[in-house]
Parts: sequence; structure tokens; C-alpha cells
Amino acid sequence: MSKLTHLDEHGAARMVDVSGKEATTREASAEAVVRLSPEAYEAAVAGTGPKGDVLAAARIAGIMAAKKTSELIPLCHPLAIARAGIDFEPLAAEHALRIIAMVKTVGQTGVEMEALTAASVAALTVYDMVKAVDKGTVIETVRLLTKSGGKSGSYIAPHAKPKPAAPGSVPEVRGKHRSSGFRGAPRDGSDK
Amino acid sequence: MSKLTHLDEHGAARMVDVSGKEATTREASAEAVVRLSPEAYEAAVAGTGPKGDVLAAARIAGIMAAKKTSELIPLCHPLAIARAGIDFEPLAAEHALRIIAMVKTVGQTGVEMEALTAASVAALTVYDMVKAVDKGTVIETVRLLTKSGGKSGSYIAPHAKPKPAAPGSVPEVRGKHRSSGFRGAPRDGSDK
Amino acid sequence: MSKLTHLDEHGAARMVDVSGKEATTREASAEAVVRLSPEAYEAAVAGTGPKGDVLAAARIAGIMAAKKTSELIPLCHPLAIARAGIDFEPLAAEHALRIIAMVKTVGQTGVEMEALTAASVAALTVYDMVKAVDKGTVIETVRLLTKSGGKSGSYIAPHAKPKPAAPGSVPEVRGKHRSSGFRGAPRDGSDK
Amino acid sequence: MSKLTHLDEHGAARMVDVSGKEATTREASAEAVVRLSPEAYEAAVAGTGPKGDVLAAARIAGIMAAKKTSELIPLCHPLAIARAGIDFEPLAAEHALRIIAMVKTVGQTGVEMEALTAASVAALTVYDMVKAVDKGTVIETVRLLTKSGGKSGSYIAPHAKPKPAAPGSVPEVRGKHRSSGFRGAPRDGSDK
Amino acid sequence: MSKLTHLDEHGAARMVDVSGKEATTREASAEAVVRLSPEAYEAAVAGTGPKGDVLAAARIAGIMAAKKTSELIPLCHPLAIARAGIDFEPLAAEHALRIIAMVKTVGQTGVEMEALTAASVAALTVYDMVKAVDKGTVIETVRLLTKSGGKSGSYIAPHAKPKPAAPGSVPEVRGKHRSSGFRGAPRDGSDK
Amino acid sequence: MSKLTHLDEHGAARMVDVSGKEATTREASAEAVVRLSPEAYEAAVAGTGPKGDVLAAARIAGIMAAKKTSELIPLCHPLAIARAGIDFEPLAAEHALRIIAMVKTVGQTGVEMEALTAASVAALTVYDMVKAVDKGTVIETVRLLTKSGGKSGSYIAPHAKPKPAAPGSVPEVRGKHRSSGFRGAPRDGSDK
Repeated sequence: MSKLTHLDEHGAARMVDVSGKEATTREASAEAVVRLSPEAYEAAVAGTGPKGDVLAAARIAGIMAAKKTSELIPLCHPLAIARAGIDFEPLAAEHALRIIAMVKTVGQTGVEMEALTAASVAALTVYDMVKAVDKGTVIETVRLLTKSGGKSGSYIAPHAKPKPAAPGSVPEVRGKHRSSGFRGAPRDGSDK
Repeated sequence: MSKLTHLDEHGAARMVDVSGKEATTREASAEAVVRLSPEAYEAAVAGTGPKGDVLAAARIAGIMAAKKTSELIPLCHPLAIARAGIDFEPLAAEHALRIIAMVKTVGQTGVEMEALTAASVAALTVYDMVKAVDKGTVIETVRLLTKSGGKSGSYIAPHAKPKPAAPGSVPEVRGKHRSSGFRGAPRDGSDK
Repeated sequence: MSKLTHLDEHGAARMVDVSGKEATTREASAEAVVRLSPEAYEAAVAGTGPKGDVLAAARIAGIMAAKKTSELIPLCHPLAIARAGIDFEPLAAEHALRIIAMVKTVGQTGVEMEALTAASVAALTVYDMVKAVDKGTVIETVRLLTKSGGKSGSYIAPHAKPKPAAPGSVPEVRGKHRSSGFRGAPRDGSDK
Repeated sequence: MSKLTHLDEHGAARMVDVSGKEATTREASAEAVVRLSPEAYEAAVAGTGPKGDVLAAARIAGIMAAKKTSELIPLCHPLAIARAGIDFEPLAAEHALRIIAMVKTVGQTGVEMEALTAASVAALTVYDMVKAVDKGTVIETVRLLTKSGGKSGSYIAPHAKPKPAAPGSVPEVRGKHRSSGFRGAPRDGSDK
Repeated sequence: MSKLTHLDEHGAARMVDVSGKEATTREASAEAVVRLSPEAYEAAVAGTGPKGDVLAAARIAGIMAAKKTSELIPLCHPLAIARAGIDFEPLAAEHALRIIAMVKTVGQTGVEMEALTAASVAALTVYDMVKAVDKGTVIETVRLLTKSGGKSGSYIAPHAKPKPAAPGSVPEVRGKHRSSGFRGAPRDGSDK
Repeated sequence: MSKLTHLDEHGAARMVDVSGKEATTREASAEAVVRLSPEAYEAAVAGTGPKGDVLAAARIAGIMAAKKTSELIPLCHPLAIARAGIDFEPLAAEHALRIIAMVKTVGQTGVEMEALTAASVAALTVYDMVKAVDKGTVIETVRLLTKSGGKSGSYIAPHAKPKPAAPGSVPEVRGKHRSSGFRGAPRDGSDK
């Protein structure tokens, strides 16, 4: 018997039946870390040049992608998103940009895929904006940070690997990059 | 003056003018590495259970996402994709799955974003399939592998960081997971 | 502190949280007035020629656009539209066409944007149909007519400016152009 | 007065008002029969060649199409699909493939169109896969099989016409092609 | 070696490479026959009631579906449709409606799938319009009629099976239902 | 005989055949004027509060809508947009915002509808952003400004009606709101 709920007992894909699940408030957050060259980081995230719309475009793209998730992921249920936001955390010491997506719904299924899709597409949009400067940009560590609501209960990501940022090196989120009033899981996944 | 071609001199986003560029054959490949728990790897990639449609679903999702790229990435040009395929490389030693997307067009602009989007969405689809077993799955290292065609010339990704897989641990691509007849850039980015 | 609910306190865009709002019946209607040249008006709206599908196409386009609203307007919530219809009012004296869109839902957020989007796209479709005859067609006065349901209460548009049509010049809606059984707000916005 | 609920009393199309209907569990199933040449049947459905992804692709396409129904059918209400699956029944004696789509929702309107659209698009995908071998493939007998839930009650398709398969010639559904655990209406529409 | 061009030698799905193919003018036409109950036929196709928008809605839906084909059929290439139209042939003697879709492009790949998808979606739209009157409507005989352009040459469908309409019973196409000026393949597939 | 090219001689809608037209560079620009209350104008366009993303969101929405035009307008041809941009002109004296969309392609058909759709959706997005402050916002004067390329030649909008802005009251376009480097037709439509 398969442990993968999207497959039936013969290995065939299907959208699982959520009609018997309760409609409750469900939230999820996810992150994507974009590692840039110093030059691309300066051009897109820091510095003083005309970079106004880079993060605004990534934010809008991420929010719109959250709404498109069930069109992209074959077995995802369509659902009415009640809230979506994208936060940015510039990681100056490593010239990286941490993107945090937060999605909320009142429905019969969770929004983990919506949060992960929003973070991924926001990250891809940043890549698109800087690719003339640096094709070597890497999107690292796309993962679920937190999840709450629903029968399977809450989830908080375990301590993040030290690679994306040395402990303590996470800069304060700057006001102008915060979008959702959502306070993401702390970088190391702890709940302090 | 901005180095970011998607921004004008005032920092405003726009789709850059490609009308003067030549319509040439352009290709790009990108990868995404999905790191799974041993249990999820066994259920989705290896093992003997009924997992038939996991990779098939991810493959279809990736190919369809390539065609949706310009709807997702705000400043991407729509273009007529001439070929798209997804390959899978199971990395048994680290219970990870390497996804390689390859896209080709005859057009006025490149397909880097299409390849990256295809790889990302295929990876998100794998996440969706295994999330009942393991919510801690991480998509690592989404990046461009190769690019050819167009005025800016070819690109081959530099030697991959050792993290995704210890050198030598990359298993041979198994026949049944290969889709496109496309031979991806070698894992370490070299051209041998 | 921002009065614009789609922006947080730092000016960043986000989809506002509607998860705590009650799911109630909500309606909205909106209008768009398309001002045509006499020749285009004759060809598309009045006259005896073969113009069968002009208004039918605009009607279908408007209804389908209502369903696409959350894909078009970045911060709009997706919602399950319960009813949508388009009415046409030919304004013969000024060779203009008034388009009225009406949308209804049972949900946590209103349908003003759906009604406005439906009216706009129906108007753009009329433009498309007549543009070979007259490129100077102007879409005037896209605006919300009425709104009801939800905590913010009802809204009725104030007296319309005299420009679109002199008072009294509004022709009776002809049967064959009425679609939804919906009686739009009177042209002057009053509630008589 | 029109019997067609999608038209008002003047013959104008509109999305009918479902806001007063109760949100109940509703299900529908539909079939499409694809008649292939012996060679195409052998290549796509039976035989021993590398045909792995034909049915997997058709299945994914059908499920994704169910979610797109309200974008395709102008007057269809968008709704939150709670379950969707596609089953295949190879009809070896007549080298045909029967496709059964099953869709479920908890909502204010039924899912007949979703099931019919899913079956149709799965069938078109099979056509696409075999068209290099046989352009004469015909999709026959797209129809509703069953419907339950909602005020209008249940529906079971009448006895199928003898053409698609001689009575008794319907092969058993093979395990590996079943996807949804859904037991379709028997081929002859009876309820035994 | 697979005869199915959409599968590679391992049975994996992929979009085939058309980048080397010549961009030529390509056309295709397809049909779908919708068999209605006498009551539904009277309400939707014939008769004197207010049925104005039934065929107009089906026509628009079919044309828009042609443009969506590559989003629906996983391995279809996106292409720039140069012309699309839908014709209707009421088959009064058998209370059926024959739908003919015609699509044209200048491109590297054919438009068979676009024509078939347009005919299917137009037929599904008719089903949707009449389903309150008759849930037993059946879409029969979705098939390619003609194809021209491209290296594989022209195709004309063989003599149609006698079932959809007895020879001679095909009524003349009535002017008001013709849309595209396109004269479809004769009902029996001959070239006279 | 119909003068409306989207209708055939029987009044039936169809996508006109552009396969014989030459692929040339084509451009179009369009405007939409959004008239706001003083309070909404202050909040969204002028003033010193945190309104960062209002215009950025409208700009992205307009650009993305240009790419969606053929999905919205039933008889529009899909085409490969080569450039798209949105400019904003704050009209402080009348607390209005003028939105100018510019689109370019190399193709067989023009981009008037793309420019008009982009301007309309950008305007609707501004409406969405300010509707909590002012539901009475009106989108006035959506119209084509310029068109060039193609057999039908160039078009420049006639002198604008005095209503949107008294002559001379048009403020200079401020740098930070300009996106495309495109210099729109002067407000009064003249060619000086």
C-alpha cells in the first residue's frame, strides 16, 4: 500500500478526496534563498542605483503565483486564498536574498504548495531581473518553514543548515522590504 | 545607469525591446535538486512499491510550466517553445533527485527562464507528491546549467558546489527516467 | 499609517487577510460606456446588417473576464462567482453603447473588481470588433454602479456626470440586449 | 419562456444565480471512448514497447482540465474541486480505450461539466500521442455517466448504444490503469 | 524503438523538437457531432424560442479553446494561430448538431490538435447549455476532417460511418450558422 | 457585406485570417485616465505616505495583461510581444493619473488591443488599490493613442477632448514614474 497519498494502490495519480475534511483556517510559510554575485546583489538589492521595481516585481509575481498554484501542480486542489504576502530579507554578508512567502486560507486543504510556489516564483523573478548581470545566480533552499491548521497539525522546519547564513549573520529585515506583517519563522527554525 | 536590463534609467520595470534581435535557435538547460528523507526517497524514486506516476506527473508538470513561463515571470517575453523535456537523475547515495530541464526555441530571446521554471515546477510537484510522508523535503540548487544561441553567447555553469553530491557519487542516469534524449551538462559543470 | 489596505505600513503590496470576514452574499454592478463613430455604431449596434455576434461576443468575453479577475488584478482574492451577466443599453442619440456588468458571490470579499473587469473587457471586445471601421472609439466612464453585502455596506454611484448622456436621452433597454434580468442602477445613479 | 437556464427570457447568455443553492457534496462521472487503429492501439495501450507515459500524460491532462473547466466553458461556475481522477479501460477486442473521469466537490453547483471536460481532454491527449501513427483516431461517445448531489437528484446514463462495444465484450478494468478507486457506471448504464 | 513521437526511446514523454522544421502555412479542420434529445434540439438549435446566444457562446468558446490548446494538451507546441472559425450544421432529421472547427497557422507544426480542441470545447459548451433539459446528450465522433501543410502532407478523413447521419440526410448548412467562410470536408469524407 | 472584419457575411464571429499578412514591426500605445478623489490621489499617487508599491503593482499588472490579451478578447490573435511598458503621468491639478501603455511586436497583426488591455488593467489595478478609500474612482478615456506598422498605416489620436485636463494643465511626466523610455503621444494628440 502506498504511503504517497497522491497515488492510488496501483500507482496511478489522482487528486485525493478532501470533501470530508473540515474547512478550517490554514496557514503556511515557505522560503527561498537566492544567492547572487556581489555585483548582482549590489544592483538588485543593495546600493543606490535605480532598482526600484526589482523587489516590487518579485513580490507581485510571488503573490500572483500563489493564486496559480493549482494550475501548475497537477494534483493540487484549487482553493480560495484569503491572504498572501512576500517578505524579503537581504543577507548582505553573503550577498543573498531570503524570500519568505506566507499564505492563508479557510478551506479543506492546506496551503503548503501555495507558499512554496510563491517563494519559488518570486525567486525566479529575481533571477530574471539580474540575469543580464549574472547568469550564475543560484536559488538555494526552497523549503516549507511553518504550517498550521488541519488535522495533521503544525509543522516548524528544523534548524536550518548553517550554509545559507552563519548564525547571527541574518540582518534585520528592513522595513521597506517587509510586505505582509507576517513574522517568518526565525532563520534557524527554532521557536524562540 | 542601471545594469539591470529589465529596469529603465528610473528603476521602472518594463519588458525590454527584443524586436531588433535576430530569430535564432536558442537552448537552455537548468537543474533542480530535491533532497528527500530516506523514506520519501524510497517511496517516490526507488523501491518496488506502486510509485508509477510520481515522476511522470513531475515531468508533465515541468513541461507544461515551461509553456507558462511568461505568465509567471512578469517581464519574460512569450515565445514559441520548439522542444521541452525533463530528465531525472536519482542520487541514491544521498536520497536526492536531480531534475534537469531542457528547452529550445527559434526566437528573438533566450529560454533560460523557461528551463529554470520547468525544473522548479517539476521539483515542486515531487514535493507535493511526497509531502504526506515528509514535509522537510528541500529543493536545493535551482540553477542554469547551459545556454546557447543569441548574441550573448554560450554559458556553462561553473563547477557545482560539493554539497549537493560528493564527487563520484552521481549515479548513472537510468534509462527509464530519461525523457528527452538530451544529455545534460555533467554534474560538475565541466565540459569533458 | 496607510489608508490603502493593499499596502502594509511600509508601502509593500500584499493580499489583505479576509479569513476572519464572514461569508455573505455580495453583489456589485459596474458600467462602461463605449463611444463610437456613427458608422461604427451603425455597424455594430444598430442597423440591419449582419452584426449578430458583436454583442454576443462582448457578453461572453465580459462574463469570462469576471472569472479571470484574480488572475489580472494582482491583489484580488480568488472567489467563487455565483452569478454574472452583462446588459447592453444602446444610446442611439449619442451613438454610444452602455455596458452594465453584474456579479454576485457568496464569500468573504466583495465583487467590485469582478464587475469592473467584466465591463472593461466587454468594452474592449466591442472596440476590437469595430476597430477596422473606427480606431477612434473611446471607452468612457468605467465605474462602479452599485455594491451590496459585506461589512462596509452598500454603495450607489453618485449622479452621473452629464457628459455621457443628457438626462432623459437614455433609451430604453431593448429586450434582445438584456442578459441577466438585472436592473442596473439608473443612469443618473439615483435610487428612484 | 426558455427552458435553457443559461439563457434569460430574451435569449441572452448569463451565468445563472446559484447563490441561493445549498453547498452539498456533488459528484459526477463521464466517459470518452477513443477508437484507435490496431497499430496505434498496440503502440499506446497494449503491447510491450516503451509506452510508459502515454496514459500517465492523459491522466494528468484530464485532471488538470477538470480544474480549468470554468475557463473553457463560458457559463460554468468556478468551484473548488475536492477530488478528481481518471480511469482507463482498454477495450482490446475493438482496440479502443475507454476513459472514465470522476469529479467531486462540496459546493453550490454540480460537476458534470468538469467530468466531461476531463474525459474529453484526456481523450484529446491520447489522440495527440498517437497521431503520428494514426490520424484517423476517433473520439466517440463523450457523455455523462452518473451524477449525484444537488436538488435535481441523481442521474445514471441509460443503456449504452451497442456500437462502442458489443455486450459482453467489455474487458475487465485492469488494475494498473485504474486511478481513483472510483467504480464507474457499468458499461451498459444499468445499476446491477 | 517507439513509433509514438511524443515518447523517447525509454517511453518518457517530451515535446518533440520542431526547431528544424520549416515555418509553412498549415491548416486543419475537425468535427464534433452533438446528439440531442428532440426537446433539447428544439430548444437550442431549431424552433422559435429565445435561443439567440447558444450557438454564439459555443462558437466563441471553441475559438478561445483553439488558443488554449497548448495549455490543455501537455505535449502540444504553442503556436500563433492565424485564423480560427467554427461552423454549425444542424442535422434536423436526427436532432443533432455538427460542429466544424477550422484553424490555420504559419508555423513549424500543425494545428490538428487546435481544431480538435476547438470542436470539442464548442460541443461541451452546447452540452452545458442544454443540460438542464437533457443530461443524456452525447458528443459523438470527434475527429480530424482535413489537414494540409507540413512535411507529412495532406489528410482527408475517410468516408464517415453511416451512424451519425444517413447519407443524404445532411441538411444544407444554413447561412446564419456559418462562421468562417470555410467549407468543411463533406460529411462523408469524399472530395467531390 | 459587413464592414466588421471579425464577422463573416452572415454575422458570425471568427478570427480573421492573417496568414497572408507580412510579419513587420508593429507598435501601439494607448491611454487610460483614472480620476481619483483628492484623498485617494494623495494616498496613491502624491503625498509622502508609504505608497511604494501602488504604481509598481499597476505597472506589473498592465505588462502581464498585455501578454494575456488574446485570452481575454475572443477574436484577438495570439502574438509574441517584443516589448511592453507602462508610463504614469500624475495630473495633480485634477487629481487624476494618466496611464500610458506601449506595446511592440514583430508579427502579422497589430498590437492595439494589447496596448488598450494593458492600460485598462493597470487602471483597474489602481482602482483596486484605492477602493477602500474611494469607491467613486472613475476610469475615463481609455483609447488608442498611436499605432504604426502594418498595411493600414499609422494612426494618431485626434485632439483629446478638453475634459480630462485643461490645456496646459498636464504636468511634466516625473522621472520615477516613467517606465519604458517611450514618449507617449502628447496629451492633446497633436504631433508637434
